Amino acid sequence: MDLQEQYEFFLQEENLLELPDFLNELNISDVAQLIEERWEDASSIMAMLSIHRAASTFKILELGIQKDIIHEMHPLKTAALLNELPADDRTSFLEELSPKAVRELIKLLNPEERKITLSLLGYPEGSVGRLMTPDYISVQADWTIAEVLEHIREVGQESETIDVIYVINDQGQLVDDVRIREFLLSPPERLVSELTDSRYIELNVYDDQEKANQVFKMNNRVALPVVDNNNILIGIVTIDDVLWVANEEFSEDMQKMGGTEALEEPYLEISIFKLFKKRVGWLIVLFLGEMLTATAMASYEHALDKALILSLFIPLIISSGGNTGSQASSLIIQALTVGEVTLADWWSVMRREIISGILLGTVLGLIGFARVMIWSQIFPDVYGAHYFLVALVVGFSLIGVVLFGTISGSMLPIALKKLGADPAVSSAPFVATLVDVTGVIIYFNFAYFFLKGTML
Amino acid sequence: MDLQEQYEFFLQEENLLELPDFLNELNISDVAQLIEERWEDASSIMAMLSIHRAASTFKILELGIQKDIIHEMHPLKTAALLNELPADDRTSFLEELSPKAVRELIKLLNPEERKITLSLLGYPEGSVGRLMTPDYISVQADWTIAEVLEHIREVGQESETIDVIYVINDQGQLVDDVRIREFLLSPPERLVSELTDSRYIELNVYDDQEKANQVFKMNNRVALPVVDNNNILIGIVTIDDVLWVANEEFSEDMQKMGGTEALEEPYLEISIFKLFKKRVGWLIVLFLGEMLTATAMASYEHALDKALILSLFIPLIISSGGNTGSQASSLIIQALTVGEVTLADWWSVMRREIISGILLGTVLGLIGFARVMIWSQIFPDVYGAHYFLVALVVGFSLIGVVLFGTISGSMLPIALKKLGADPAVSSAPFVATLVDVTGVIIYFNFAYFFLKGTML
Repeated sequence: MDLQEQYEFFLQEENLLELPDFLNELNISDVAQLIEERWEDASSIMAMLSIHRAASTFKILELGIQKDIIHEMHPLKTAALLNELPADDRTSFLEELSPKAVRELIKLLNPEERKITLSLLGYPEGSVGRLMTPDYISVQADWTIAEVLEHIREVGQESETIDVIYVINDQGQLVDDVRIREFLLSPPERLVSELTDSRYIELNVYDDQEKANQVFKMNNRVALPVVDNNNILIGIVTIDDVLWVANEEFSEDMQKMGGTEALEEPYLEISIFKLFKKRVGWLIVLFLGEMLTATAMASYEHALDKALILSLFIPLIISSGGNTGSQASSLIIQALTVGEVTLADWWSVMRREIISGILLGTVLGLIGFARVMIWSQIFPDVYGAHYFLVALVVGFSLIGVVLFGTISGSMLPIALKKLGADPAVSSAPFVATLVDVTGVIIYFNFAYFFLKGTML
Repeated sequence: MDLQEQYEFFLQEENLLELPDFLNELNISDVAQLIEERWEDASSIMAMLSIHRAASTFKILELGIQKDIIHEMHPLKTAALLNELPADDRTSFLEELSPKAVRELIKLLNPEERKITLSLLGYPEGSVGRLMTPDYISVQADWTIAEVLEHIREVGQESETIDVIYVINDQGQLVDDVRIREFLLSPPERLVSELTDSRYIELNVYDDQEKANQVFKMNNRVALPVVDNNNILIGIVTIDDVLWVANEEFSEDMQKMGGTEALEEPYLEISIFKLFKKRVGWLIVLFLGEMLTATAMASYEHALDKALILSLFIPLIISSGGNTGSQASSLIIQALTVGEVTLADWWSVMRREIISGILLGTVLGLIGFARVMIWSQIFPDVYGAHYFLVALVVGFSLIGVVLFGTISGSMLPIALKKLGADPAVSSAPFVATLVDVTGVIIYFNFAYFFLKGTML
């Protein structure tokens, strides 16, 4: 029997009493899956779970279901659930709600949890402060190992991870981090100070979450201490939260690169109207930009009139520029995202893209040249007497357009980042549009250069 | 003084003796940074580190530097380094090398490490087996807590994480996982079996790494046990390795979406020639596809000849299809990647994209219609007497092209996945090319429909 069938089985009148036991025996990920498949039963399933398991389940549900559950559950139960949630997960849930809903929910918290939540919400969105949890274990350097282990036994249940214990001084400043294994592997009478090496890695509460990702990647830790500007330890960030953020960031980046606003809800669950709203904005902007191609073409109408053959290659030429441009922009966005390229590298990037652009353009230019030469032998009527000149126009235009595509594709994300914007925002379609318009101009200029006096 | 300056200082003759101490005092991430900035000194810096720190540093370096170091270091030192590397990191390093280099390096391992490495390399690329490490702690259900803690003290140094301890039976099969905190919080005379609840989450050694990412996200663990098909525990996967993989996957997906092969090296470090090779392939394919636009246009030359005005809107129309197409494809690729959409959902996706396409197309179509109507009043010479019909052609073509763009943009990634290919591969530019060609055809068909008997 799969999960659904088992659930149906316990839903039957005669087995109903055993349903809570069944639910409390499941892995929380299975409970979460069940809730997502039986959205309509979400709040009643939640109500049957022990409060601790309810909280663990709640935090891995999709935002839409989370909102529904909070909305439908009895306020007392909601309060218990919110109080039980780890502070970091509670913060990231509240982050997604309207300010009004946040105010309502914060009222449900007990004074201590309220204080913690408000302080976490006080840090800027996207900062490490929003990710951290105040549930960690700190000890002082003059304690013995035995005292530390006793302390862990007392407060360990609250802590999100006890893999690493933090050593602080009288002022609460971070002095070191020590892995729990060091304590376990040492004799109980030794002092904490004998285990410290003052080599630790910390995050600042105002650091970017993106930075936290990098630091975790480089340092093989499951949790990192977070300090304020006075080096006072105020929380920890655990790697699983960073993995969540990384996955979300990635989704957003992909959506933005494709020219949509970040959906923030799963594709199949977002309403069609919202989906439309998230997409139409950029499409209109790009469409208005693309209109310039019509204006540009109109100004070359005279040339088109005389040499209609030129019109055949317009889509080919401008889209080649667009393709190279989106290639370059996605390469650079990716490199910026993972920190391989920084703003200071713009000139190295430019140099590489100029060389790449010339190489790529030459390859496409040669193919384009060959295309015109070969077709002109097969269809001499269409291509006319000056086919060689037309082939030159096509070939050189391709070099020019591809070069322009690589340069603008690589520089736009850097410029956006420099201006403080997200480099991923619509870069690929934006570059394509820019290159389409300039592509028309480049093409007709080469046409005038080569065909002046013959066809034009 | 920054890192570089400090290093320069110790490089001076009179301070050289203190250089190893300086290096051994640094955080390993700082050492790694130093090595990346002083690539030429990489192997000599590595030689000065204690072997344990050398291994920790090595595993976070870029592949290019890793190869150089292995190449330049004394074979004895290389052997020591490889033996010291955690098995999972060693495997992922070897994975990147040529089979010949792997054979050479495996010879340097001691028999035990060789056995471990060969067995890890025996699992398919991209599988959990390649990520796992055999360094974990397992205990049996009939042990006391005191025995467990004693066991941890004995073998804990070897283990990659001791946050979770695994309980196995006589056959080596996984029975449960217990967090170390449970042991620390319990009296020493209790039995392990009293702490177990038989609720555990495991990975199969043949599972996709992508799946491991999902399981970690959903379950708030720092490590997960890996079992073979007989449920025998053979290793663990730690979350930091999954974070690495996730970051790499994201980078590859982004590059592929932009129409490049995955670079596999940082953008600024890859040679220009390699960069060119990775990019030119898809550009040529797309270019050959795009040539069909010229063929399509040639077959409508007669129409263009009679109504030159039609040529003005070609870039506008085909690129609008391309933009909506890349929007749709990046939305669907993202949803497929995170598992929000599966192949079975294709019809739901299609339905949503048809509705979205009609809505988006209508908006752009109305703007396009208005554009032609307004300009025709300003430039009556260019637009001629039949401007209203031209405006209708533009408007309806936009609806058709946008609809075609959303449908093909959303279905192509699903079809690629169905065929076993990576849905991210060049989807956006590929869809753009497909839509360009069909866009021309759609446009001229609407032109014939509306203008037959008047302009055509």
